[in-house]
Amino acid sequence: MSPSSPVLVSVDWGTSAFRARLAAANGSVLDAVEAEVGAIGLASGAHEAFLEARIGGWMRRFPRLPIVLSGMVGSRQGWVEAPYVPCPAGAAEIAAAATIVPTTQLGRVAVIPGLSVRDPRGAPDVMRGEETQILGAVGADGRGDGLFVLPGTHSKWARVEAGRVVDFATFMTGEVFAALKDHTLLGRLMTPPDETDAAFAADAFARGLAAAAALERPGDFLHAIFMTRTLGLFDEAPAHALAEYLSGVLIGAEILAGAQGAREAFVVGSPTLTARYRAAGDALGIVFAAAPENCATLGQIALLERIGAL
Amino acid sequence: MSPSSPVLVSVDWGTSAFRARLAAANGSVLDAVEAEVGAIGLASGAHEAFLEARIGGWMRRFPRLPIVLSGMVGSRQGWVEAPYVPCPAGAAEIAAAATIVPTTQLGRVAVIPGLSVRDPRGAPDVMRGEETQILGAVGADGRGDGLFVLPGTHSKWARVEAGRVVDFATFMTGEVFAALKDHTLLGRLMTPPDETDAAFAADAFARGLAAAAALERPGDFLHAIFMTRTLGLFDEAPAHALAEYLSGVLIGAEILAGAQGAREAFVVGSPTLTARYRAAGDALGIVFAAAPENCATLGQIALLERIGAL
Repeated sequence: MSPSSPVLVSVDWGTSAFRARLAAANGSVLDAVEAEVGAIGLASGAHEAFLEARIGGWMRRFPRLPIVLSGMVGSRQGWVEAPYVPCPAGAAEIAAAATIVPTTQLGRVAVIPGLSVRDPRGAPDVMRGEETQILGAVGADGRGDGLFVLPGTHSKWARVEAGRVVDFATFMTGEVFAALKDHTLLGRLMTPPDETDAAFAADAFARGLAAAAALERPGDFLHAIFMTRTLGLFDEAPAHALAEYLSGVLIGAEILAGAQGAREAFVVGSPTLTARYRAAGDALGIVFAAAPENCATLGQIALLERIGAL
Repeated sequence: MSPSSPVLVSVDWGTSAFRARLAAANGSVLDAVEAEVGAIGLASGAHEAFLEARIGGWMRRFPRLPIVLSGMVGSRQGWVEAPYVPCPAGAAEIAAAATIVPTTQLGRVAVIPGLSVRDPRGAPDVMRGEETQILGAVGADGRGDGLFVLPGTHSKWARVEAGRVVDFATFMTGEVFAALKDHTLLGRLMTPPDETDAAFAADAFARGLAAAAALERPGDFLHAIFMTRTLGLFDEAPAHALAEYLSGVLIGAEILAGAQGAREAFVVGSPTLTARYRAAGDALGIVFAAAPENCATLGQIALLERIGAL
């Protein structure tokens, strides 16, 4: 098989976006289709029709190519439920729990399950989609263990041992940032970023990180975010930098809680978010190694040979 | 002067509501007017016209009665700015910084200033309106010192020594609760409270408090709130009780941070909020003594004799 032969149609279908990639065995992308269409709340039959419309051309060129989907498409509100697999779980457990869906035009497709875990007090946590990215990042890392962070709307911090996710936790950093900025008093004094004044923005982000590092009690978080307003009221930060202070408090608090004292972690995310976490890590004494961008596809390739029924 | 003689028109005018009381020397309310009209963003002259329309009748019956206003009416976006007084500050400092406003029909009115403080790292904090309530609560307490909490949209925790506010901190508890409930994923599974199932609601609130008490690092807050969703996903709390879990996490985290190890505090707030804080205090080992409901008026009476120019 040449390096440019496709081995997989890799689909990452979340709550707001659809991404399909025609992928080679090394994870390289031969062709790609994206759409801002989420997998949640579609009518019965709509998932299959949508998928066929997007990847039907590939399937006619490469019949019987396996199709693997991960992300919220496998949730109860998605196409078909692929129930959460409890941790610890690695490629074997995740592949074994994949839900195989028959289709009329695309053959059988595999929907990857999410993971669940209980904290020491019994409270549940879940991920869906990130487990596949973690498998891809673990494989690319080659060591098979470590601490992995997938920053975003709901950041996930996962601890991997011998290729298996043994523990993880969700931090609602991105969604809390958006809610505070758009739906509380904190956004009132903010103006859009000023690209000509990046130094002030960096200062404000650093001040937010320092505030996060200085928090003594968990509830002090509810106090530190209020400084987004008072720094503006007292003209101690320009209006265009106030969002950066808030981002620094949130990301700093997340990193210090997620890392739990660790000094290095792998970050799996967009270049923009990766750069932001690496800058925060520099200030907080944590080294973030960047994972490949195509971790979801790499993870699906790692799962592919273990999913026998496609 | 008989106990039923008015000594003051006491006005508490905040961002969303106007409350005027015709008050006797002991703080009792002889008459009252309320309106859901905030003091922020009104046109020039509108504050005076609005006030005259509401209390003009009292002033014609009792000419030259002092009029004292506290709350956001004294902010930069209010009627007239009464600049923040830095802590430590008690009745003397606050009265001395009152802004006296001449009016055409009501004589001179006094606008009470807010307070400001710096935390050990130099970050500013502010209150406006609560300083007057605290003075009223301190006077009613009779001891002149202690820890005071004014729960709400922006909860304030203030430390008072010898009748002066020496330190305070804002916690955005109420506003964060509303933003998370109404503008994040956490609200999706919530249904309105079910009055016939109060035991589950109390259980969920207690579980939130316990989660707050178990938080190890400040950023764990961003994780604990996510359980509002997973407890619903795993059917471990009824949908109508999920908001109570979230409330418990937020109020618990606030109390543990605000109390800083103290075992007793005075709570100044509505009966509903006072009851909620006392229930939380029972679970967290903190005794909340309730302050009188008319603290704003009591505080203005305490200030009145020190404001010479009315």
